[in-house]
Amino acid sequence: MNNYQPPLRDIRFLLRDVFNVATLWADFPSSGGALEEETAMAILDEAGKLAGEVLAPLNRSGDEQGAQWDNGSVTTPVGFRDAFAAYGRGGWLGFTGNPAFGGLGMPKMLSVHLEETLHGSNPSFALYTVLSSGATLSIDTHASETLKQRYLPNMYAGVWAGSMCLTEPHCGTDLGLIRTRAELQVDGSYRVTGTKIFITGGEHDLTENIIHLVLAKLPDAPPGPKGISLFLVPKILVNSDGTLGQRNNLSCGSIEHKMGIKASATCVMNFDGATGWLVGEANKGLAAMFTMMNYERLTVGIQGVGCAHGSYLNAVAYAQSRLQGRGPEGAVALDKPADPIIHHPDVRRMLLTMKALTEGGRALSTYVGGQLDIARYASDPQQRASAQARVALLTPVAKAFLTDTGMESCILGQQVFGGHGYIREWGQEQWVRDVRIAQIYEGTNGVQALDLLGRKVLLDEGQALHELLKEILDYGVQPQAAYRQQLMYAVEMLEETSRWVRDRAASSPREVGAASMEYLHLFGYVFYAYLWSRMAAAADVRLGDDPEFYSAKLATADFYFKRVLPRIEGLVACIRGGGDCLYSLEVEQL
Amino acid sequence: MNNYQPPLRDIRFLLRDVFNVATLWADFPSSGGALEEETAMAILDEAGKLAGEVLAPLNRSGDEQGAQWDNGSVTTPVGFRDAFAAYGRGGWLGFTGNPAFGGLGMPKMLSVHLEETLHGSNPSFALYTVLSSGATLSIDTHASETLKQRYLPNMYAGVWAGSMCLTEPHCGTDLGLIRTRAELQVDGSYRVTGTKIFITGGEHDLTENIIHLVLAKLPDAPPGPKGISLFLVPKILVNSDGTLGQRNNLSCGSIEHKMGIKASATCVMNFDGATGWLVGEANKGLAAMFTMMNYERLTVGIQGVGCAHGSYLNAVAYAQSRLQGRGPEGAVALDKPADPIIHHPDVRRMLLTMKALTEGGRALSTYVGGQLDIARYASDPQQRASAQARVALLTPVAKAFLTDTGMESCILGQQVFGGHGYIREWGQEQWVRDVRIAQIYEGTNGVQALDLLGRKVLLDEGQALHELLKEILDYGVQPQAAYRQQLMYAVEMLEETSRWVRDRAASSPREVGAASMEYLHLFGYVFYAYLWSRMAAAADVRLGDDPEFYSAKLATADFYFKRVLPRIEGLVACIRGGGDCLYSLEVEQL
Repeated sequence: MNNYQPPLRDIRFLLRDVFNVATLWADFPSSGGALEEETAMAILDEAGKLAGEVLAPLNRSGDEQGAQWDNGSVTTPVGFRDAFAAYGRGGWLGFTGNPAFGGLGMPKMLSVHLEETLHGSNPSFALYTVLSSGATLSIDTHASETLKQRYLPNMYAGVWAGSMCLTEPHCGTDLGLIRTRAELQVDGSYRVTGTKIFITGGEHDLTENIIHLVLAKLPDAPPGPKGISLFLVPKILVNSDGTLGQRNNLSCGSIEHKMGIKASATCVMNFDGATGWLVGEANKGLAAMFTMMNYERLTVGIQGVGCAHGSYLNAVAYAQSRLQGRGPEGAVALDKPADPIIHHPDVRRMLLTMKALTEGGRALSTYVGGQLDIARYASDPQQRASAQARVALLTPVAKAFLTDTGMESCILGQQVFGGHGYIREWGQEQWVRDVRIAQIYEGTNGVQALDLLGRKVLLDEGQALHELLKEILDYGVQPQAAYRQQLMYAVEMLEETSRWVRDRAASSPREVGAASMEYLHLFGYVFYAYLWSRMAAAADVRLGDDPEFYSAKLATADFYFKRVLPRIEGLVACIRGGGDCLYSLEVEQL
Repeated sequence: MNNYQPPLRDIRFLLRDVFNVATLWADFPSSGGALEEETAMAILDEAGKLAGEVLAPLNRSGDEQGAQWDNGSVTTPVGFRDAFAAYGRGGWLGFTGNPAFGGLGMPKMLSVHLEETLHGSNPSFALYTVLSSGATLSIDTHASETLKQRYLPNMYAGVWAGSMCLTEPHCGTDLGLIRTRAELQVDGSYRVTGTKIFITGGEHDLTENIIHLVLAKLPDAPPGPKGISLFLVPKILVNSDGTLGQRNNLSCGSIEHKMGIKASATCVMNFDGATGWLVGEANKGLAAMFTMMNYERLTVGIQGVGCAHGSYLNAVAYAQSRLQGRGPEGAVALDKPADPIIHHPDVRRMLLTMKALTEGGRALSTYVGGQLDIARYASDPQQRASAQARVALLTPVAKAFLTDTGMESCILGQQVFGGHGYIREWGQEQWVRDVRIAQIYEGTNGVQALDLLGRKVLLDEGQALHELLKEILDYGVQPQAAYRQQLMYAVEMLEETSRWVRDRAASSPREVGAASMEYLHLFGYVFYAYLWSRMAAAADVRLGDDPEFYSAKLATADFYFKRVLPRIEGLVACIRGGGDCLYSLEVEQL
């Protein structure tokens, strides 16, 4: 089932009506001057065509064929190589890249929609592109001018791809434990040795070269996370004239057999004295990696939104055509033996939940993308710093909440199909399998929740949270704000709960981790309330321009406030159950 | 990863300490007189050995190999045939069967634990057995003496298997739409013609014959669900002397490629004028089918509990051995580079949520199994009728709540594993894929919710609900009841919400379906509160006998009341959002 349609109408609504990008982008550098809304939409339209015509048709076949490993080589499914080449030719890999090296310098606020389009049409394919873009971002931000000149142009062009090599068999979250080591050579390069696992796109046949960014320890490094450095290690060494030289001493030992994203090669990478170059300062590799982490985590969150949207499109089409039973208030389709199931209230509830969560998620990703742009491009340093703090606060929410709600949506989208949702040919179960990884990788959602509550909310005495809530309250007191009362109540719940956890955590550190997951969800629903309030207000103003679209937006906002936001009552009540009950059992009693 | 251990200690606790089966079973028929607790435990111990030694080792390989279709024949994975034979030889297929035909006549209250053991070790294998047992139940209850004598002994012995053929391509939930037809022949048999889909075990190589129970319409049948009859249609015709005769005119057209339960053959069955015999009365096939539906739906619910338990065993083992980071209050394992993740509060929260939901689910399945036994075996007709009403009320809860919480548990069990949870070799993702179907088949959980609220709660003016709540309140006022205040509050929430929905539904029928899913979850959590209160009270009495076990039970109850039950606040708040907001959008606006 391939119903893929990029959500262009919704994106235009967000960019123009809700976030007013014309004003925002006027100051930003972009290809050929300030980006205009119409240009942006034309660009996304092109991306949508590529996604709908090239990527979506490869999604099911990619899942069936999977990536295949043979003696160190990885073959991607039929069509992926051509699709990647087309994607590279289109300049999409350098979409937000540095124009000095061939990137397009586009704002992240636009890129989030490109990314959603990729994840909504073919999540496995999307991964090859976003990992590559992530690697270029790290190189552009931290590497020497020589490295940038040598690697970025071909990576932006899609001639070469990139990978990020962090995890090792015994350590994922706790990177301080890594064992891969790097030794300085006389020529200034390093010999990198060690084994990395779970490396997305560590090996494949899409490009002639793959540029790995590898975390490793220098011989004299301090122990733990402060002794980690970042190295650029190409699969094939690049001569000083830019041509390809010898094969480097690294290989792909195997690929994983996974629940989903099967067309994405997840590699075990062996570095056997491979030649690499330091990126950024020695022992500051984690910091260099974390520069791009906020971008990557947002991208993973967007995978949640994209998959949810892909699942939603199928679910709506199925619910409109599947005949079963009669509506709750009598027959609707009198000429048919039964009514389309879209008339059943519980099916509506499922579809509207998907719609409200997905459109809320799209708004969140747009908001965070905008803050990333301000943090990078704004001329006022104060504004940059403030946006940076906002990004730091919202990144774990974006990563975890967008993927948890994305998973919920994909499960609902499968449920709408009844038995057919479980059958591979229909494609709905693949969305569940594919989106599931997004709750796990790039820092599990539990780790995100701890980052949000333990670090971003509590460590700075709630300053970042306070500023965000001020933004919401300043908005909420305006007469045009929609659902003011519900929004104010939700903010109050978040404030009170934050205070409650802070007070408890002062005497018992375990309270932070005990509350963190439900706290992150509470935070997410409250922030969605802010976004849905803004969306409803914007739709109300424009209602006459396009009644079908804007009235749907208003109705979805209404559903959100009435049927989704009240979930926070349960979350807060569970948090208040406290953390002591987690430790009444001994380890052996579990 | 195969850590399978049957939960014998917990079962003994439920049977003896919580439900006092000695008294209950004293009146029941069973093999060789009233069943005693020690005998029951010895029986389950045997089942557990079979599950641990034979079935669990075939779970992963079964998933990898899957059932294979070739030209009408289905090959099950290596080892399944021998396992099924061993299972049949053990008498397990006739466990609750009629002793007059070779069944063991065991109570359902014991059988639920056998079933959990099967689903907890190998859900695909379990399906072949439970469908076969379901078919024997229908035959025993509705078929003629001749049919019973001819089919039951071999089915109980596992020499033949059974299947249930309901769904057709265009109808699942709405069986009134079926097109399969049956025509009477001069010899009193029928010719059955039509196509059935999603037929579990419709074809396989486990047994020499397969006995299909098929829903079909007679030529003069009234339209809709009141015109459906049930037929027994064997794969191979059985001669009057019991030997196998000619192959019947039916065939397996293909099998489905599914998300999970891959070793279970899900068949398209073509009946081309196949010879069959009427089971029960003409046009009363749905009623005949629904006799066993309460049993089957409970069994599907138990699949949720079994899978959750299987996932939990792995998750605990992993969390005890995986080292990552340090506990919230400083290092615990000082001799190691990091602490086992079981010391992290969020990992504890996940494990305890699994534990509380799984043990609550086991208690619910035991309770409903007991009610099924009373409804069938009690000497007092009043008691039988009352139990029957209780079963009718609780069946949709058991089916949907046990599988929704089973899915939640399996996802948590996967999340505990981090990245390894996504890799097939570890086995954790299989639990998610395998349990997912249980929310869909045997009536989707949305249909269960509508059945609960629309039919079981509202249609009889809340009488069945009233009686159940009376049982809880009668218990709750006793001084030994644990968590009395929380339990009473929860019951009040359920009562109030039931009233609220009833009032709204009086003027707007859509309110039922709009509230039903969250209502079912509310109901489930409140009923678990009753069961956890009883379990805590029972554990408290016995604490000195086995402090390690009973203190764990008390701690898990505490966790349930503090961190799980409060979810009802969110459910009630969402229900009160009402149903009108589901219908503000036109179908085309979704």
